[in-house]
Amino acid sequence: MRKYNFSAGPSTLPVSVLEALQKDLVEYQGMGLSLIEASHRSPEYDAVHSTTLALVKELLQVPDTHEVLLLQGGATLQFGMIPLNFMGQGGSCDAVMSGSWAKKAIADSAKVGTVNKVFDGKDSSYTTLPDNVTTTAGAAYLHITSNETIEGVQWKNFPDTGDVPLIADASSDIMSRPLPIAKFGMIYAGAQKNLGPAGVTLVIIRKDLLERCPDSLPAYLNYKTHADKDSLYNTPPVFAIWAMGEVLKWIKSNGGLDGVQKLNEQKAQLVYDTIAAHGDFYRCPVDPEVRSTMNVVFRLPTEELEKQFIAAAKDKGMIGLKGHRSVGGCRASLYNAMPLEGAQALADFMTEFAKAHG
Amino acid sequence: MRKYNFSAGPSTLPVSVLEALQKDLVEYQGMGLSLIEASHRSPEYDAVHSTTLALVKELLQVPDTHEVLLLQGGATLQFGMIPLNFMGQGGSCDAVMSGSWAKKAIADSAKVGTVNKVFDGKDSSYTTLPDNVTTTAGAAYLHITSNETIEGVQWKNFPDTGDVPLIADASSDIMSRPLPIAKFGMIYAGAQKNLGPAGVTLVIIRKDLLERCPDSLPAYLNYKTHADKDSLYNTPPVFAIWAMGEVLKWIKSNGGLDGVQKLNEQKAQLVYDTIAAHGDFYRCPVDPEVRSTMNVVFRLPTEELEKQFIAAAKDKGMIGLKGHRSVGGCRASLYNAMPLEGAQALADFMTEFAKAHG
Repeated sequence: MRKYNFSAGPSTLPVSVLEALQKDLVEYQGMGLSLIEASHRSPEYDAVHSTTLALVKELLQVPDTHEVLLLQGGATLQFGMIPLNFMGQGGSCDAVMSGSWAKKAIADSAKVGTVNKVFDGKDSSYTTLPDNVTTTAGAAYLHITSNETIEGVQWKNFPDTGDVPLIADASSDIMSRPLPIAKFGMIYAGAQKNLGPAGVTLVIIRKDLLERCPDSLPAYLNYKTHADKDSLYNTPPVFAIWAMGEVLKWIKSNGGLDGVQKLNEQKAQLVYDTIAAHGDFYRCPVDPEVRSTMNVVFRLPTEELEKQFIAAAKDKGMIGLKGHRSVGGCRASLYNAMPLEGAQALADFMTEFAKAHG
Repeated sequence: MRKYNFSAGPSTLPVSVLEALQKDLVEYQGMGLSLIEASHRSPEYDAVHSTTLALVKELLQVPDTHEVLLLQGGATLQFGMIPLNFMGQGGSCDAVMSGSWAKKAIADSAKVGTVNKVFDGKDSSYTTLPDNVTTTAGAAYLHITSNETIEGVQWKNFPDTGDVPLIADASSDIMSRPLPIAKFGMIYAGAQKNLGPAGVTLVIIRKDLLERCPDSLPAYLNYKTHADKDSLYNTPPVFAIWAMGEVLKWIKSNGGLDGVQKLNEQKAQLVYDTIAAHGDFYRCPVDPEVRSTMNVVFRLPTEELEKQFIAAAKDKGMIGLKGHRSVGGCRASLYNAMPLEGAQALADFMTEFAKAHG
């Protein structure tokens, strides 16, 4: 029986996408071989590649000012590529220190130059985000994390940063809602939450920023290399891009980003409401204004009860509810592909468990 | 009907591997979800990850002095990581300029420091390799390309480089034959020829070299990051590693590297012998001493005949025979997963075509 998979990433995918990939895995559409064996210069792969890029542009309404790239190495490689491309040795940038993923991005920027933390969530244990931020003169960019997967905080409105390019790691909430792409200098995401399986990284970058990428960088590390070759400078991760294309088709057929956003809000509301209804048993530490629709973090009265909760949920076919090891507690990740029934089953179980143990 | 796929990469895979992946793609071994949806910290993925690493070590007899890493970004990202990790700004390295892939590796090293070309195949149009090479005092490493996919030259014996670490791009012939791993400081390969589908990069690195990786590098770009975390510092490309593990099991069940080497030599011999038997029609420009068992390049009397040959082969279910656009001509890639029957079918067709058009 299929489990409800609340893992933070890699995470649940639409069953229809898995079935489509399975069907064609040995022989792709009558071509006499698998797509993963085909040359990345073949017409069959080319169609998959350009369809995937076109769907990103269509669903996110990417304006002509921006380029869409498909890279490898996850958001983690982007943490390094961003300062190498835009800050330059000894330069400076601004960053919002909002949680565990912001911390990693900041650490890499700090290898290259000076990072001004224009907000630090430390005092609130990373349970909130700033209303607005003020950029620093000379900052090469302002980096934010649109959704902190581990702490469960999510930007609802994005700051205006004037001439300072706004760069966002959107790994854990890309394609979960419409986004004002024009506000961003760059937005990027590892695939393994809402886009598909792990192995491809989406980068949306404002074209004028490509002119800032220094020629002194090795080829792969320069965004211009990939933009100039339509993300085919070197062999792309064919399977991951094929799967991402199938996921994007599924999003489109489910009402696009407005459709998935509505459903994501419904699912998150179910779980947050259950937490509130049993406020003496469950507790969500996050500022209600910035609670994530993707990753609902919550605590039970004791760590012992948390262990029991996670184990009992697993017995009922609900997995991946353990909070990240760095913060403990529980976490339910409710990405696009988690059906409403999954969120409902979790809410029902939470109610039942609170009544039995509260 | 399944085609014989002579593409240079991505390239043909064992059908049994494709079938194994297909079988478990929607639900992996009864776990109630696909492996590509599972957390990379799950016991199920962990077993796949460690099995794949263990099979690399077993098949290539990797000594304890060396570490095995699974990265992303292809050999292309390695071209940049190598100088950043080992040369340092303003340092120098040695390199053998043997063809198109060596050229790309050299270009990236030259972004970081000085490259001494200890051999340049330019005068022979990259149809041969040096018998031996002399390293330069102060060189951080010597870089070679164990097989040039485009020009079809392959190192048969590797040079002794003393204290200068030998680094080899083995993308197009890794796992096609036993390798004296102890001779190498580092050996690396994109997966999409002999290891599996595109999306994962194998790196085998001598442990003492990890101490040279500078702390000033962003996390992903530092080999030490990955070595310290068993290639799980960030989310790995799960599907590509799973597939690579299945390919390695298939190699093991086919007699290991001795077994595939024997078969690879047989296949290549069939095609090279056919070229020699029709020496007035086909011509292989490569020095017989260093002809590749993986990529057999050959010319026909005219470009028009080459076009006809490629089209007629395609009609007979043999695809991917066009030479790289940078050099023209024909090329048959005969990686591990190309069955002997495929090489025989090609040889038979070449004979037939020569008789009809010679």
